[in-house]
Amino acid sequence: MRISELSRRSGVPTATIKYYLREGLLPPGRATAATQAEYDEHHVRRLRLIRALIGVRGLSVSAARNVLDAVSEEETDTHSLLGLVFGLSPTGKPGEESAGEGSPAPGDSEAGSLLAELGWDVTEHNPARHVIDQTLETLRSLGVDYDWRSLLPYARLAEQTAVLDLDQLQSPLDPLEKAERAVLLTFLLEPALLALRRLAQEAESHSRYGEPGPRE
Amino acid sequence: MRISELSRRSGVPTATIKYYLREGLLPPGRATAATQAEYDEHHVRRLRLIRALIGVRGLSVSAARNVLDAVSEEETDTHSLLGLVFGLSPTGKPGEESAGEGSPAPGDSEAGSLLAELGWDVTEHNPARHVIDQTLETLRSLGVDYDWRSLLPYARLAEQTAVLDLDQLQSPLDPLEKAERAVLLTFLLEPALLALRRLAQEAESHSRYGEPGPRE
Repeated sequence: MRISELSRRSGVPTATIKYYLREGLLPPGRATAATQAEYDEHHVRRLRLIRALIGVRGLSVSAARNVLDAVSEEETDTHSLLGLVFGLSPTGKPGEESAGEGSPAPGDSEAGSLLAELGWDVTEHNPARHVIDQTLETLRSLGVDYDWRSLLPYARLAEQTAVLDLDQLQSPLDPLEKAERAVLLTFLLEPALLALRRLAQEAESHSRYGEPGPRE
Repeated sequence: MRISELSRRSGVPTATIKYYLREGLLPPGRATAATQAEYDEHHVRRLRLIRALIGVRGLSVSAARNVLDAVSEEETDTHSLLGLVFGLSPTGKPGEESAGEGSPAPGDSEAGSLLAELGWDVTEHNPARHVIDQTLETLRSLGVDYDWRSLLPYARLAEQTAVLDLDQLQSPLDPLEKAERAVLLTFLLEPALLALRRLAQEAESHSRYGEPGPRE
């Protein structure tokens, strides 16, 4: 298909597609003339992934390129592929970048103790470890008596959540589709999962403490 | 205590405390002289709550004032109090503000269908409803076949999460303490819960798909 059709199919403006081509996020099409190229389904799907990374999750172009490069290189290994997606920090930087010399040694951190207790096999550079440590530190600085053991029951529920997540990647998808689906479900479900918790909190509060005054 | 001691106890600079006093976020102390006032434990705790709302969650001063006013007014009703905290939108605006004339009627939204199926009693103006609807819409626009039924298993886990949350508010706390604890646990645990999911995903991926290449 021509670039105009690719734009129509993906919902991404032609000028933006050309920008992604120049930046190397989208591989070039097959040249059919000096100024024309043919694009295929691969390009449609890749554009959708780019849109999810940049448009929906707010990643920078260079952060998105890191993810896309990695997805393309490691096509053969499902765990590596998913690890790239699952190891992404909230700001979208691949985990490797945040593991500097200042990173705590294994077991030094509270997240390390939590993971050891849970028996979870997680690489040292998964940035979610630091989020755990930071949260516990912040809570304590605000006078809440919390340590990694307080998170254990939440972690058990997260385990079941992850099973639901991974089950949705079981269908026979090619690696690019699998990466796309993992990005979409990991990133885009996050606000919905927090929203479900808020709704459940209100429902639970209602059933424990009763009618909250005037309701609509 | 004097304002300097209040600053030391709360970790909030004196100039910031004076700003909160001017803005009406912090009630005035008991005047002991023309330019001096006495503050008490109530002020320390209130400052901690302000710090959690503004400093940690990034609320605007006026959004924080809305929450604090509401917390003070409805001291007697635990469910109303918690509802104010739990009904806060992710940006910190109380739910009422986001329910304009454009809000869908009950049952019109996918969130409504989900809540009906779950039997959860949640007010119409809880902004988390819109988050659910928006997420489903975004996922479908990106080609993922998802509707409210897809969220049911996640909702069942959110139910268990909310029980853990509410259990931590059971201890005999006064209303201000309860509101503070609810804010801290609702808002500050959010990144940690998402981090637990990321870690659990990596662990689950590892156990399903095995060794992901070179590990540290």
